[in-house]
Amino acid sequence: MTKSILVLNGPNLNLLGTRDPKVYGKVTLAEIEKDCILRGKALGYQVECRQSNHEGQLVDWIHEAKGKFAAIVMNAGAYTHTSIALMDAITSVELPVAEVHLSNIHKRETFRHLSYLSKVSVGMICGFGAIGYQLALEALADHLAA
Amino acid sequence: MTKSILVLNGPNLNLLGTRDPKVYGKVTLAEIEKDCILRGKALGYQVECRQSNHEGQLVDWIHEAKGKFAAIVMNAGAYTHTSIALMDAITSVELPVAEVHLSNIHKRETFRHLSYLSKVSVGMICGFGAIGYQLALEALADHLAA
Amino acid sequence: MTKSILVLNGPNLNLLGTRDPKVYGKVTLAEIEKDCILRGKALGYQVECRQSNHEGQLVDWIHEAKGKFAAIVMNAGAYTHTSIALMDAITSVELPVAEVHLSNIHKRETFRHLSYLSKVSVGMICGFGAIGYQLALEALADHLAA
Amino acid sequence: MTKSILVLNGPNLNLLGTRDPKVYGKVTLAEIEKDCILRGKALGYQVECRQSNHEGQLVDWIHEAKGKFAAIVMNAGAYTHTSIALMDAITSVELPVAEVHLSNIHKRETFRHLSYLSKVSVGMICGFGAIGYQLALEALADHLAA
Amino acid sequence: MTKSILVLNGPNLNLLGTRDPKVYGKVTLAEIEKDCILRGKALGYQVECRQSNHEGQLVDWIHEAKGKFAAIVMNAGAYTHTSIALMDAITSVELPVAEVHLSNIHKRETFRHLSYLSKVSVGMICGFGAIGYQLALEALADHLAA
Amino acid sequence: MTKSILVLNGPNLNLLGTRDPKVYGKVTLAEIEKDCILRGKALGYQVECRQSNHEGQLVDWIHEAKGKFAAIVMNAGAYTHTSIALMDAITSVELPVAEVHLSNIHKRETFRHLSYLSKVSVGMICGFGAIGYQLALEALADHLAA
Amino acid sequence: MTKSILVLNGPNLNLLGTRDPKVYGKVTLAEIEKDCILRGKALGYQVECRQSNHEGQLVDWIHEAKGKFAAIVMNAGAYTHTSIALMDAITSVELPVAEVHLSNIHKRETFRHLSYLSKVSVGMICGFGAIGYQLALEALADHLAA
Amino acid sequence: MTKSILVLNGPNLNLLGTRDPKVYGKVTLAEIEKDCILRGKALGYQVECRQSNHEGQLVDWIHEAKGKFAAIVMNAGAYTHTSIALMDAITSVELPVAEVHLSNIHKRETFRHLSYLSKVSVGMICGFGAIGYQLALEALADHLAA
Amino acid sequence: MTKSILVLNGPNLNLLGTRDPKVYGKVTLAEIEKDCILRGKALGYQVECRQSNHEGQLVDWIHEAKGKFAAIVMNAGAYTHTSIALMDAITSVELPVAEVHLSNIHKRETFRHLSYLSKVSVGMICGFGAIGYQLALEALADHLAA
Amino acid sequence: MTKSILVLNGPNLNLLGTRDPKVYGKVTLAEIEKDCILRGKALGYQVECRQSNHEGQLVDWIHEAKGKFAAIVMNAGAYTHTSIALMDAITSVELPVAEVHLSNIHKRETFRHLSYLSKVSVGMICGFGAIGYQLALEALADHLAA
Amino acid sequence: MTKSILVLNGPNLNLLGTRDPKVYGKVTLAEIEKDCILRGKALGYQVECRQSNHEGQLVDWIHEAKGKFAAIVMNAGAYTHTSIALMDAITSVELPVAEVHLSNIHKRETFRHLSYLSKVSVGMICGFGAIGYQLALEALADHLAA
Amino acid sequence: MTKSILVLNGPNLNLLGTRDPKVYGKVTLAEIEKDCILRGKALGYQVECRQSNHEGQLVDWIHEAKGKFAAIVMNAGAYTHTSIALMDAITSVELPVAEVHLSNIHKRETFRHLSYLSKVSVGMICGFGAIGYQLALEALADHLAA
Repeated sequence: MTKSILVLNGPNLNLLGTRDPKVYGKVTLAEIEKDCILRGKALGYQVECRQSNHEGQLVDWIHEAKGKFAAIVMNAGAYTHTSIALMDAITSVELPVAEVHLSNIHKRETFRHLSYLSKVSVGMICGFGAIGYQLALEALADHLAA
Repeated sequence: MTKSILVLNGPNLNLLGTRDPKVYGKVTLAEIEKDCILRGKALGYQVECRQSNHEGQLVDWIHEAKGKFAAIVMNAGAYTHTSIALMDAITSVELPVAEVHLSNIHKRETFRHLSYLSKVSVGMICGFGAIGYQLALEALADHLAA
Repeated sequence: MTKSILVLNGPNLNLLGTRDPKVYGKVTLAEIEKDCILRGKALGYQVECRQSNHEGQLVDWIHEAKGKFAAIVMNAGAYTHTSIALMDAITSVELPVAEVHLSNIHKRETFRHLSYLSKVSVGMICGFGAIGYQLALEALADHLAA
Repeated sequence: MTKSILVLNGPNLNLLGTRDPKVYGKVTLAEIEKDCILRGKALGYQVECRQSNHEGQLVDWIHEAKGKFAAIVMNAGAYTHTSIALMDAITSVELPVAEVHLSNIHKRETFRHLSYLSKVSVGMICGFGAIGYQLALEALADHLAA
Repeated sequence: MTKSILVLNGPNLNLLGTRDPKVYGKVTLAEIEKDCILRGKALGYQVECRQSNHEGQLVDWIHEAKGKFAAIVMNAGAYTHTSIALMDAITSVELPVAEVHLSNIHKRETFRHLSYLSKVSVGMICGFGAIGYQLALEALADHLAA
Repeated sequence: MTKSILVLNGPNLNLLGTRDPKVYGKVTLAEIEKDCILRGKALGYQVECRQSNHEGQLVDWIHEAKGKFAAIVMNAGAYTHTSIALMDAITSVELPVAEVHLSNIHKRETFRHLSYLSKVSVGMICGFGAIGYQLALEALADHLAA
Repeated sequence: MTKSILVLNGPNLNLLGTRDPKVYGKVTLAEIEKDCILRGKALGYQVECRQSNHEGQLVDWIHEAKGKFAAIVMNAGAYTHTSIALMDAITSVELPVAEVHLSNIHKRETFRHLSYLSKVSVGMICGFGAIGYQLALEALADHLAA
Repeated sequence: MTKSILVLNGPNLNLLGTRDPKVYGKVTLAEIEKDCILRGKALGYQVECRQSNHEGQLVDWIHEAKGKFAAIVMNAGAYTHTSIALMDAITSVELPVAEVHLSNIHKRETFRHLSYLSKVSVGMICGFGAIGYQLALEALADHLAA
Repeated sequence: MTKSILVLNGPNLNLLGTRDPKVYGKVTLAEIEKDCILRGKALGYQVECRQSNHEGQLVDWIHEAKGKFAAIVMNAGAYTHTSIALMDAITSVELPVAEVHLSNIHKRETFRHLSYLSKVSVGMICGFGAIGYQLALEALADHLAA
Repeated sequence: MTKSILVLNGPNLNLLGTRDPKVYGKVTLAEIEKDCILRGKALGYQVECRQSNHEGQLVDWIHEAKGKFAAIVMNAGAYTHTSIALMDAITSVELPVAEVHLSNIHKRETFRHLSYLSKVSVGMICGFGAIGYQLALEALADHLAA
Repeated sequence: MTKSILVLNGPNLNLLGTRDPKVYGKVTLAEIEKDCILRGKALGYQVECRQSNHEGQLVDWIHEAKGKFAAIVMNAGAYTHTSIALMDAITSVELPVAEVHLSNIHKRETFRHLSYLSKVSVGMICGFGAIGYQLALEALADHLAA
Repeated sequence: MTKSILVLNGPNLNLLGTRDPKVYGKVTLAEIEKDCILRGKALGYQVECRQSNHEGQLVDWIHEAKGKFAAIVMNAGAYTHTSIALMDAITSVELPVAEVHLSNIHKRETFRHLSYLSKVSVGMICGFGAIGYQLALEALADHLAA
């Protein structure tokens, strides 16, 4: 098994730090990705980070991940709640996925309570802001070691 | 503040004038866009028009609009009813949006009654055909002047 | 066809300008009606304005409109969401109706999302405040000219 | 017990014969009322007919009916589906009510399937057009004779 | 067109007069059928009556009615609420049907409020007891004469 | 602030004492109003009482209450459950309202469980019969003293 | 009162022992019926057993049971969840019914959770396999002795 | 009948005065209980007050109340919305209960709109803060005197 | 395994060719059955065809199919949407079933969208008219060969 | 395996015989427990009986039952419908549970139709009164012997 | 009319043969496409095959199909259940579409039961695996020949 | 602010390691608590651990936590889904709470998808087994440091 983990971010997350800071905090995506690489290194994993606003692009990347990555940390943004295609993509490649959300989706609008991804992910971490990505990496490392 | 307004059209609206004329009228998208530019000029605004069938492309364009446009007239077509990502994109850039629909969506199938966009748009104009775009421009000019 | 348009306002709209200005703005009904008459004149139509808090009165006025008016601009206020009788009245007289709401009803309480009127109106304009009445007049003029 | 029956018609039924003849037929309300009086006479009852577009007026008339009429034939029009006040009025005066609808309300829009009146009426006759009123009179005569 | 009308009764109606007299009255099915024949004669129609507890049997009889009867009076009992097959059978033979219920089904359990038959019947008479059958015959005679 | 309180009663409450005494008791509206005036006097308030079966009339009276009354005790009868217009009227005049119901509305039919008024009233008292009006007056006096 | 109990089995139960043994066990219907007769004898009752896949046939048998049997043990199979006609038949004959299901219907598909029969049966025994029939006989014997 | 009334408070109400003062006010439970005792005395009743965070303890106390108290004033806090056991306990002891809520539960989260207690209580007083307990005592005194 | 396939048709399908030709086409059931036999022969299977309007009869035939047929092509008509008994019968005999509908049931009334049969059938073919039966035979032949 | 069975009763069942005798009968809990011990002895099992109004106490007792009892007869009273914790406790100890209800819960309020326990119990016996406990013991003895 | 048919496959179908073989079988997309071309040839049609994970790309291809293809065989994968845009695209180009699914979508998760495509497709074939594509081609050829 | 964190476990979690190991793993509660203390120490916090099966006990402990602990890690087990009282207790003491679940509750039964706690907790970690507690401690340390 490879010692690499893919960190995927979905729509609008490229704007982090500029968008609605009361909900999402002031950290930028670049800072989050840098922290992911450091935490990954500490856990013995090489971390690669990508972001796209296109659902189809995210599906393509998940397909490519098979064989190249041991697991995926995924914050699918709004596609979390609407994309069965992303859910099917994860099922297809059979890689463990840790779902991350910066905000606590259970406290927001009703249509954000449903996550298609959580039906196929190992687990979810939400509400703790940027540190959630790092916790997800540790959770996956623990999961892969089991 | 810039004196430019972006007119965005979503999926299938490139076919206007050919598609189901009983519902959408015979006017083509090119004609609508030409009228928008004229009405914009009369209101003191430069109008730029774009269309795409790709949800991700529309998200990208909304991101780019920040700082370049004062407001957006948006007919998101079918994505109106399914795209939380577009709704989040509008929230992120904090630009006033006037939602337009050629047909009266409240008289059509139930799944067209819900608009995610209307949760973040200033207002909606629907059912009056092509002139709706021009009325939306006037509504936004009024809104920006307030 | 007559060159007259009736502007009907329903319950509580007589209080405009005093009531919850954050939602409805500071303009009074008298000012809105004056602007409607001016815009109507510019569009070649004589505009007559009436308001009542009584559902039955509004039904009576719609009945009387037949033959005397070419179209109706209607803000039925709270009766928008509860009155099948008003909807039936419009169906009975077969006059084109443009529905207006000062606020964006899709952003308010759930019970304000349903409009019985929109099932029989040509179209709806909502969320743009007082200018919505004028836009509705232009939309109807365009509709009658088609 | 008096030998009089009250025939009450609700909103928009004053337009009968002019309104949507495909659904309601070409008979006018005056003709229906004349036939009611004749059938009533044949059954040994004096029939009195009233119509109003005002919910409160209909409630008042029901209150007044107590002691003056033996029963009520009622077509409440659109208020059938929205008025708990009319339902409560009937309960209060404890007069037998026969509910009439010209069209078959079960074949129309969903919001016309619910009748608050039918929770307190003896029975309902719908879908048979103008003759429904006469059948309702016979049904009430039979009911009062029991 | 034949001058015959078929009166069909469904499950458990053979027990009329013995079953739950508070709801259905004391009249037996034989008495109801005798009254139907008399009323039919007065209206110029020959009436034939049948009853079965078997859904398939009722479907067969409706098929056979085509060409032999001008219309059907039908009390489908409990199958009213569950049988799409009976509804389809009526659609197939294209005969006018008057639906009858002894009790007011809108006042009983929720699962008795839905009638599949009423989606294809001309109209419904309910709540007036045994006389409902006779009123249905008159309603059909009126309908056939139109 | 004025030292007057308006007691408003809605549809069918004029029949109190005659209507369904098992549910509403034997007290008449006149007796209730007399007790309200006495209790008001004891609390230092002048009480004025009105009743109407017309929704529009009640809306008008609420509008007129502004500036003339310090608070409203309101039993809207059946309009409690259907009138968004009354709710909006209360919001418009910004007067504190104490909602009263003679019966415990939570124990009756499901459609009586929802109260539009309770979304804008200070509080509700229900189920205790005629004394509920007096308790509401004391509750409002306490509320106004805070 | 007769000392006989009728044991009725509905659709597909003739296949017991061959069908899906993981859910229904290996016992055949003949064996169950034999055990019922023995247990009945021990309780002082003569037991008669019948099975049919036809809903109408089961209705007929329930009608015939009146006067001949003191009670009915009934496993209506799939008709449990769809047949209002069987429920009405039981109401008509006013015989005590003990409902039996081999499997625990509350643990199976959602559409098997609703039992129309349980609205009119004395009680239900489910989930204990073939012995459920014998327990139902004892429960009925106890019920009849009360 | 004893001249004692039990005042029961449920979970978290021991924190009154410290918890979310915007919703519940600044009064402590001790102060409320003192006022209850005084008002009780004025009404001719001895008042005893208890509070517990344990559902089972509240059930036990209701059982014990039988014979010792004439009525119960009850603010069950969050158990109002979830405890069928408390509702059954009240039914079992057949004591009149007046339900009190400091806040107007109809204006809060949807899951607080349902009260199991109100299905068995005489009536409910909510939204008027601490004085609600005293009004409940007067309501019960009036109820017991009837 | 036998080389025979049973083709079962349910209620009202005996009227094919006469019934609502806009929905079901002009082909008669006899013609469809003849084509099935020919296509079966081409695929190496002997085809036997039966039709009944009786749910119980269809259940009986499915029971008898066990051991005599390798598979079943089934158009259950209206029973598709209401018969759990037919679904259970198919489960019991463990024969592969191909579900056929002449019309596209997903485009018709909502109550025709649910198919109990599809929960136990191999697959469904709908909307292609009479050729659907032949395609079902080929699909089953392919399925049996796997 | 031990030859002991635990009989657990939940909230309010300590009041049996005093509470609502029309629904629950006149038998006391002590009498039921005595009969359980006798029937247990006849079946070769030692029976121990406990009751509590505290959900947590019932959870504790189920935990303790592991290893000491072969099975549990459980009437969880109102907790049947609300306690996921009791359901999880049963799953944890993996003991067979027979669910008992004195009344037929399917005939009572809707909120009593759902039983969380029945998702993990072997089967349910309801509606037959006190004898249900004894039948449950026999059902469990039969189950343990399988 | 051209003699060409377009076969469109949506998201994740490029992974066929590798993904969840228990559900989708072992056949690869390349093999399916080869079989489609052969079957098309036998039916007299040239078949062209395309696949994309991007919703917008599929919309573009449907637009381009107009005039170049006589019909479309479409397996939209997960977009079947979420894409109103694809549905609108099909409506716009007015080409007959045969919907194919490898698995029986009615047997899978609830959110896969709804197909937006089926509201505009001629028919659907599902559950028969790879042969479904070939049957769809034959169905379309039959449809085009009508 | 104190440097202590409380770790609370709810019903049935005392059985961890023995209960359903496929879902919850083999780790015991004692081992989890030991790891929490170690991780807490590494993060600079003293950790105290408690468990109870009693909802009221958990409410009491949350009340006591105020002033003694800086935050709470909470796995409320089944009470997560049913206890509004626990949710209110957390709101009352205004301490930050990190919600932990061993399993991914979104993949289990529907009634486990709703968490009342998540409406008031900072965030949730679920699905990663025992390490979730440690990650929650780190998340809280990060939260307290912000």
